[in-house]
Amino acid sequence: MMFGKVCIIGCGLIGSSIARAIKKNKLAHKVVSSNRSNITNKKVISLNIADDSSSDTKKMVENSDLIIIATPLSSYKDVIKKIKSSLKEGSIVTDVSSVKKKVISLIEKKIPKNISWISSHPIAGTEESGPESGFSELFKNRWCILTPSKKAKAKDIKALEIFWKKMGSKVDMMDEKQHDYILSITSHIPHLIAYNIVHTTLKIKKRNKRDVIKYSAGGLRDFTRIAASNPIMWRDIFIQNRKNTSKMIDKFIDNLKDLKKAIKNKNEKKLGKIFTKTKKIRKEIVAAGQDISRPNFGRK
Amino acid sequence: MMFGKVCIIGCGLIGSSIARAIKKNKLAHKVVSSNRSNITNKKVISLNIADDSSSDTKKMVENSDLIIIATPLSSYKDVIKKIKSSLKEGSIVTDVSSVKKKVISLIEKKIPKNISWISSHPIAGTEESGPESGFSELFKNRWCILTPSKKAKAKDIKALEIFWKKMGSKVDMMDEKQHDYILSITSHIPHLIAYNIVHTTLKIKKRNKRDVIKYSAGGLRDFTRIAASNPIMWRDIFIQNRKNTSKMIDKFIDNLKDLKKAIKNKNEKKLGKIFTKTKKIRKEIVAAGQDISRPNFGRK
Repeated sequence: MMFGKVCIIGCGLIGSSIARAIKKNKLAHKVVSSNRSNITNKKVISLNIADDSSSDTKKMVENSDLIIIATPLSSYKDVIKKIKSSLKEGSIVTDVSSVKKKVISLIEKKIPKNISWISSHPIAGTEESGPESGFSELFKNRWCILTPSKKAKAKDIKALEIFWKKMGSKVDMMDEKQHDYILSITSHIPHLIAYNIVHTTLKIKKRNKRDVIKYSAGGLRDFTRIAASNPIMWRDIFIQNRKNTSKMIDKFIDNLKDLKKAIKNKNEKKLGKIFTKTKKIRKEIVAAGQDISRPNFGRK
Repeated sequence: MMFGKVCIIGCGLIGSSIARAIKKNKLAHKVVSSNRSNITNKKVISLNIADDSSSDTKKMVENSDLIIIATPLSSYKDVIKKIKSSLKEGSIVTDVSSVKKKVISLIEKKIPKNISWISSHPIAGTEESGPESGFSELFKNRWCILTPSKKAKAKDIKALEIFWKKMGSKVDMMDEKQHDYILSITSHIPHLIAYNIVHTTLKIKKRNKRDVIKYSAGGLRDFTRIAASNPIMWRDIFIQNRKNTSKMIDKFIDNLKDLKKAIKNKNEKKLGKIFTKTKKIRKEIVAAGQDISRPNFGRK
């Protein structure tokens, strides 16, 4: 066993998948969780995801060797306020957030001495939400990025690295600035664009809606998967990473206007050149093991 | 057997899938194809996709009861010029194009009397191209939209409907205006957006490219699948449907600017509301049988 007690704050898709992976890989003697909603706490216990679960976060955190914050970013202020006096000396605090800069300094300021605050970001997930949607294999062969705070102990960083590896992840280190920039490109902008295309589609006349659903297999359905992700989580991500996101939106719009102009001018050469280039990146992603090579995601 | 001889002009992903489905379902005595490239013609014969294949389109078309144009839209002018004098009296000419308005009138003007020109659009495909990527089940449970020209005979429209149904498709009728509008939403804009996001991504500094590929599972990889589709085919689609596409781009940009503003102003309420609405459309698409319900497309 790596840890005595692990406490997961927020047992949704990610939190419950961690709980399941801990149990499956025998990484802790005890796993507990804390959720604001008692319906969720009951579900977590009845599904045997954690050994105990309660809205009393202070109590759940007591005596934990590892505390994992897996709530939306907008709740971090409340969470750290609630738990800081209950944290066990020498414990590790981590999270699973998709934006680092603001939360790392927020928690760094509030956390007691002799506790290692090391932010984690498992690049894994599905469009589903809630504890019932988690599964123990979610992190398998996926990257997990660690961003330690300044005062985190080297031995604790190592321990957290091993923890993620035992759940099947590949682990990488990155500072918060680079993390927030890269993730704005690989994750935040794609999600925002997916939300926006579905949002734009929803504004069409009602009489056409049936046809749009019916013929969505032409491309739109892929976007609707991403645009079905947890709304609160994504709202918080965009707001917390607003500088990087805004810059990328501007670039995206400039390029789109440029494409529109090429289409209007029937500029076959320019369009053909761009669409040929974009084809190559998929091959690199498949070669890097970041997607399956079967056409249509193997979907039938 | 439904037909004596079927000729497929352009044996790529779609054309070769039709050839395979014809053979599998025994819908014609003979299937031939015509491709400009002799490498493709040889491949089609050696893979046993068609009984004969040659760059001599005139010859291949001779005596065919059904002629299927499955080439990029920009070649239609050449194709109809080549084949019009070889078309058998009473035969059916169809295609598989994604934009209707311009090609329907183009072919209507050139085609001899007593031949039924009925445009088809199977809403099916993958990101792969070429004859080796086709498969006989591609059209199974997918919609195929028929848009008959004014002079098409009712019995031929019925025959073509049965033909697609025998290959596993569900068939619907739509006029060209509605078709081009609906498809701009369900297919053309999603593809253009996917191309644009990958195009924008490719413009980042080289030293960050490795990280972008590595962490693409956060959302970007889904877009790269669509942006790996046939460049020439898509170039032609955007140009031919430029009016609908341009209008939708403008709406998309307006909405994106609006989202950017909400992010900048930390308007949690507005963002939460939009992202909750977009979640619903996915459920409707899955309920309509247009995507699988497994999270992450069932991808592991």
